[in-house]
Amino acid sequence: MTTKKFLLNEQDIPQAWYNVIADMPVKPQPMIHPATHKPITAEDLYPLFSRAASDQEVNYTDRFIEIPEEVRELYRIWRPTPLVRAEGLERALDTPAHIYFKNESVSPVGSHKLNSAIAQAYYCKSEGITNITTETGAGQWGAALSLAAKHFGLELAVYMVKISYEQKPYRRSIMQTYGAEVIASPSMSTKAGRKVITDHPNYSGSLGTAISEAVELAMTTPNCKYVLGSVLNHVALHQTVIGLEAEKQMEMAGEMPDTVIACFGGGSNFSGLAFPFLRHNLVNGANIRFIAAEPESCPKLTRGEFQYDFGDETGYTPLIPMYTLGHNFAPANIHAGGLRYHGGGAIVSQLMHDGLIDAVDIPQLETFKAATMFARSEGIIPAPESSHAIAAAVREALRAKEEGKKKVILFNLSGHGLIDMTAYDRYFSNDLSNYTVSDEEIAAGTSQLEKLL
Amino acid sequence: MTTKKFLLNEQDIPQAWYNVIADMPVKPQPMIHPATHKPITAEDLYPLFSRAASDQEVNYTDRFIEIPEEVRELYRIWRPTPLVRAEGLERALDTPAHIYFKNESVSPVGSHKLNSAIAQAYYCKSEGITNITTETGAGQWGAALSLAAKHFGLELAVYMVKISYEQKPYRRSIMQTYGAEVIASPSMSTKAGRKVITDHPNYSGSLGTAISEAVELAMTTPNCKYVLGSVLNHVALHQTVIGLEAEKQMEMAGEMPDTVIACFGGGSNFSGLAFPFLRHNLVNGANIRFIAAEPESCPKLTRGEFQYDFGDETGYTPLIPMYTLGHNFAPANIHAGGLRYHGGGAIVSQLMHDGLIDAVDIPQLETFKAATMFARSEGIIPAPESSHAIAAAVREALRAKEEGKKKVILFNLSGHGLIDMTAYDRYFSNDLSNYTVSDEEIAAGTSQLEKLL
Repeated sequence: MTTKKFLLNEQDIPQAWYNVIADMPVKPQPMIHPATHKPITAEDLYPLFSRAASDQEVNYTDRFIEIPEEVRELYRIWRPTPLVRAEGLERALDTPAHIYFKNESVSPVGSHKLNSAIAQAYYCKSEGITNITTETGAGQWGAALSLAAKHFGLELAVYMVKISYEQKPYRRSIMQTYGAEVIASPSMSTKAGRKVITDHPNYSGSLGTAISEAVELAMTTPNCKYVLGSVLNHVALHQTVIGLEAEKQMEMAGEMPDTVIACFGGGSNFSGLAFPFLRHNLVNGANIRFIAAEPESCPKLTRGEFQYDFGDETGYTPLIPMYTLGHNFAPANIHAGGLRYHGGGAIVSQLMHDGLIDAVDIPQLETFKAATMFARSEGIIPAPESSHAIAAAVREALRAKEEGKKKVILFNLSGHGLIDMTAYDRYFSNDLSNYTVSDEEIAAGTSQLEKLL
Repeated sequence: MTTKKFLLNEQDIPQAWYNVIADMPVKPQPMIHPATHKPITAEDLYPLFSRAASDQEVNYTDRFIEIPEEVRELYRIWRPTPLVRAEGLERALDTPAHIYFKNESVSPVGSHKLNSAIAQAYYCKSEGITNITTETGAGQWGAALSLAAKHFGLELAVYMVKISYEQKPYRRSIMQTYGAEVIASPSMSTKAGRKVITDHPNYSGSLGTAISEAVELAMTTPNCKYVLGSVLNHVALHQTVIGLEAEKQMEMAGEMPDTVIACFGGGSNFSGLAFPFLRHNLVNGANIRFIAAEPESCPKLTRGEFQYDFGDETGYTPLIPMYTLGHNFAPANIHAGGLRYHGGGAIVSQLMHDGLIDAVDIPQLETFKAATMFARSEGIIPAPESSHAIAAAVREALRAKEEGKKKVILFNLSGHGLIDMTAYDRYFSNDLSNYTVSDEEIAAGTSQLEKLL
């Protein structure tokens, strides 16, 4: 197992987040209003999000945005996180490649999600907001926001997709332990929820419905804002503390990665690790390769279309310019719940479109095989989401071996899997499958996109 | 929440464990053979344990015992662990006390158990052993040993108490993910197991039976040793890395604790944190108070007898001089599974007998109340076992408030509770009880002890 860690001091926690948009050769297109077809401004977002988050969402010019001292202070609960040279995994693969991973699993909620949860909760608090609301699928984001809300004394209501609420009671309990109210969605607490329940009494919920409920609650409750855990530009921004720390740590290791890998759901942990390194390509002419690792069952970057689409299933959000499988695409019920999202964020999608980053999609069984190898060689049981990054890193390391090349690979361990052991159980019992998506399914999902504009 | 961490560098991982026996005014009495009534020697233990562990078990003279470089190297996976000033908890209690905790929950298996698992697995490997075996109740120890065994290439068979095997599938899956064989006990794989199954077909298992099965497997399998996770002197020795690090960290904080607290099952995490600080009392005339926090439902230190007793329920082990409720005492099914053990280790029991340490026993509901307060004020969800230490620290901090005294309290957060969320769920649903033990039950358990010698 690996014991070569590169550790920073608390003073090394970044002072500012990195806003990659400022350095992009082609800027992301703006979000647009589905009715007026006009670009969305910060002011348009104020009713829904905190002002600070709304301003950050459309900030295309400031390269670095200061991290408030109160946020940096809370980052110190678990940051800086370690960078680890995965020598155990290298030995297990017998590869000449050097493999590094940034260990975001050490946060008290077990994932990187806390980086943005703290920032967003802080902004709400500092603007006098008393209540916040969000949706969560598997529960990683909901758990992180529950901790952050408790710290800042905000009341939090989390709409949790009903099937996860019932099947993943551990994450629900974690949120409740931190003091959040957790509501199975669809619920009777909103118009949107009541309609779904009335129309489909046995419906087990979807992220789309949960988003609608949270948005409705925020719009109809005084002094309440909606908070989102991925996809949006300001969330990607907050996550760049990951890559900014990793940059310093790779320097300590005396190497620069030539391949940077992270798993991909809506883009939050990928953006967080990749953007600070991407800057070396954009500004200094470096030639680092970036790989977003998505599930074979939800291949928006590798097989989706670059189009305007809704951020939610039911079409309540602004239209976002993104690689998408269509907002009605229903991903298979894989265990990497955090990657079951139909679209990528605007920044990542533009970078993908411009050939500045790559993507791969990986079958579920390959991710669990890689995860088990990682657990046995590095001692840490990874989250099913993070296992997509590990599987992609394994592919690259084996390619290096075939080609007899030394390679320096860096991936993000976005979370641990201690609360996902049911998934491992099923893997060891040969009770898991791969889920492929046919061209027809993809065409069905994306064929209606052009009508949206 | 707290952000005041005191962090050491990897070079600060201790070079030697601290053997408190060398400094004890009255040494622990030896273990004795139940048939011959002769003191047990290291040689007597060689067939069962590694030679190194056997030698350490009876080492009464060496104050410091060198940590092998290979063990220190692996400690670097997660050590040194942080010492944290719990300012969030202090504020929640509005206490003048300063509360510190040593955070052993950051290990990849989530508890302090890895400190001894790595050492024992290393010794077995270096002595040419190929197979090891152990028992586990809730699974914390089994998970730690699984990781260590995988690293050193040892085959590991874990006998897991059947009711936990069925009710705690997450910990079972963790062991399997690390590559261990996990067998529900009682099993058909041993004579002891077969007898129990034949006599009581529906028996859901006990730690006593599981120990018997593991011991039998070790004694009947070539090149196989038995490994234990608590109670014994050499396990306490390995755990002293906790206190040795904390000593340096309290120096960094510029304070010395006047109260040191840890939860108490067989003694491993209590010994680990307390002994290096106890040295200040024994050698330098300091006046630190030590509190072992045990469950109200298993009060061996507060209400048990100081007598020779078996380490296991069925009476296969040597007789150990300890505070005990009797080896047939059946503790209530509380969620702090790691504290459901009838006796304390020989060293701790002698210290208790000589008035050098204190103990308290705490009702289950009080521990969950303290745990929830801790999660909400410090961001970390504690293990039900560790919550006993937190509850004891809360009592001390409230007493300091009443008395208007500044106090410096240090406790051990021996593990996180992310895999114990069912317990929290039941607590929030008002589905948990306290379990008191009557004087009659205690008399029934201890009345037969004198006949053993």
